[in-house]
Order: sequence, then structure tokens, then C-alpha cells
Amino acid sequence: MKALKIPEATVMRLSVYSRHLAQLAREGTVTISSGEIARGVGVSSAQVRKDLAYFGEFGTRGVGYNVQELYNHILRILGLNNCWNVIIVGAGKLGSALAMYRGFEERGFKVRAVLDAEPAKVGQQLGDLVIEDMSVLADRVREHGITIGIVTVPAEAAQSVTDQLVQAGVRAVLNFTPRVLKVPERVVLRNVDLSVNLEVLSFNLFFGNQRA
Amino acid sequence: MKALKIPEATVMRLSVYSRHLAQLAREGTVTISSGEIARGVGVSSAQVRKDLAYFGEFGTRGVGYNVQELYNHILRILGLNNCWNVIIVGAGKLGSALAMYRGFEERGFKVRAVLDAEPAKVGQQLGDLVIEDMSVLADRVREHGITIGIVTVPAEAAQSVTDQLVQAGVRAVLNFTPRVLKVPERVVLRNVDLSVNLEVLSFNLFFGNQRA
Repeated sequence: MKALKIPEATVMRLSVYSRHLAQLAREGTVTISSGEIARGVGVSSAQVRKDLAYFGEFGTRGVGYNVQELYNHILRILGLNNCWNVIIVGAGKLGSALAMYRGFEERGFKVRAVLDAEPAKVGQQLGDLVIEDMSVLADRVREHGITIGIVTVPAEAAQSVTDQLVQAGVRAVLNFTPRVLKVPERVVLRNVDLSVNLEVLSFNLFFGNQRA
Repeated sequence: MKALKIPEATVMRLSVYSRHLAQLAREGTVTISSGEIARGVGVSSAQVRKDLAYFGEFGTRGVGYNVQELYNHILRILGLNNCWNVIIVGAGKLGSALAMYRGFEERGFKVRAVLDAEPAKVGQQLGDLVIEDMSVLADRVREHGITIGIVTVPAEAAQSVTDQLVQAGVRAVLNFTPRVLKVPERVVLRNVDLSVNLEVLSFNLFFGNQRA
């Protein structure tokens, strides 16, 4: 495996490119240039080429990329030829929305369990899943081989839930709460603040008309 | 105003820094070094300094940054000393979660209206808001001076809803659907795919143990 220090922005763009390529493949497009990818997703074609160059040689000069091959290759880069098992802790509106979000499964993320501390929520159906009590957290992580924990509890419960997830053995935590969380070095942590997306828009509205 | 070509990743990190600074300010911290900011949010201190350097001189050598001043400054950079009015189209689980998301208002985004095409949903309460029919879209945009439209409808309706938002005069669209949308050059478009966050985790799990 190569020594990699890939900018996160590149990883996020790869994810966007792959979605665009999936749509093109469905529409029957066979080859595509970096310029066409760029126009399709709203970045420069130099950026597309630079992003792809991190991962070796793609495409044929003057012909472009084979859509299906490039798509498969990006999925492998993103680790999406694996299936990742996921647990969601916190079945409020956001946790429920995430539990029902079809996009996850399409991309290889399988939500195996949804937990909540509120007795009134336990037993409710969310698609194929039933909301379960917090007490089964460690059992579910073990029995489903869960790698990723999504935290959508109220801020004040976020660290304690994260500690339980880490102790149960998840290797990555996706934090949707506003709290800054502590995890051991070996655990991958990612903070998602839904406002960030609005803030990038706000910045772009404020400073001119670049594509966000 | 300076000519700016700020990387989006920088804007997103500024947003993360500002949240960390807000938490520190609440806890009573007065000054902070770039190294402390870096450790708090999980990036390198060189990255923090580089990000802030886009926007001129901050801090005092050997003393660090004043937490409250830096926080206020970043909010101004992000355009968050404005209040932005927002409309959400699509009151499914995700749209409802966003309509109720408290983080938006804290950061200057005020959701003024939530619309849905489904008669059964129209009239339902979501916090302070009542779900309204699609037919009022242009009226609500005009009367509330709405700048930002959030699209959380099923994929097949996404382009048509976006066209209506653009026609009504929104200046920015936040797209939560998997569809690649077309907007005029003057409109800022941002695509959010919630899977992207999981995919960055997946990439990091796959390629080693960097912080995502």
C-alpha cells in the first residue's frame, strides 16, 4: 500500500465524482473527459485530474476515462467495495432520518441497529429496524461486527455514548452533535455539523459567486 | 474586499474552529495558541495558521489569539454576522430533522418555511413552523426575503423544485438529493450527500489511522 496523505477535500470530491459517474453509467455513457466530469460536478478540470493523479494513472490521452472502470476504481479507493456495518445511537429526527437514508446502503454502509435511551421510542419501527434500548449497545456491535458508530444523541450525552461505542470496539465515530468529542488515537473521528454546509454557502454568497 | 480564492476545505475548517472557540469562550478561556486550536479540532497547528493567514494577521506572537476576538472575526469571515433566511422544500424525515435542527439558528440561519407536496403532511406542526403546500413557494421566498433553499425532496422532483426556487429568487441552493442539479451561474449550489461523511471515514479506516 502506498504511503498516503490525501487531502480530505480530495476524498470528498472523489465521493462526488463517483456519484456523477454512477449517474452517467446508468444513462449509458461509456467514456468521459476530465473536463466533462468537472462541468458535471462544478469544479475545474485541473482539479479533477489532480485528484485522480493521487491514485496513479487513469484514462487514455485524447480518449478520456472509461466511466465504469473509473467508477469501480474510485469505489475501491474509498473502501466501498467493502460493506461497513453501522450502529446509530440516538433515534431523534436526525437519527431516524439517517436510519432510513437509502443512500447509505447504496454505498456499502449497512445500518444494523438503532438505539435510544428513551423508553417511549424503544420498540418503534424504522424501516426494517426496530429501535432498541441502549443496554444492547455492546452486544449489537459485537454480533454484527460493527465498525462505525453514528452519534445523534443530545449534546450532553455525546461523550458518554462515544465512550461506550469505543469500549464496545467500533473503529470510527461519526459525530452529529455540536460537542467536541475525545476518542483514543486508534479510533477515527469525524465531526459533522449540518450548519457547515450552510456556512459554506453563506461564505460564497458573501464573497461572491464561486461555486460552493 | 480582497480578491479571494479560498479553498472550500479552509472554509469548512473555519466553521469547525469557530465552534471550538465558542465552546472555549463559554468555558471562560481567554487566549489560545494555534497548537491548542489544532489539538482541539484534530488538525495540525501549521494548518490552523495557514487557514487563518488567508484573512490577514491575527494573534500576538508568543501570546496567541484572543478567543472571543478570533471567534467574532471568523463569524464575520463566514458571513454569519448576517441572518440568512432559509426555506426547506420536502418535509420527509430529513427535511423535518433539518427544520428542527437548533444548530442552524445559533449560526444565523433562520428557517422561515417548510413545504411539501403531500397533502397529508400539509398543516402538520414542526416546532414553530407549519408544513405548507408547494403552491406558496414563491410567496414565502418573497415575503421573508429568503436567500437559501434547502432541497430534501425525492430525487425525481429535485430539479423541478430547484427551478422553482431559482425562479422565485433564492441565491443559493443546498441539495440533499442524490441528483446532480443545474442552476444558473449566479446561483450558488452545494451538494450534500450524507454518505460522504461515512465515505471519508471508510477511506480513513481503509488507508490507516489518520484523523478524518
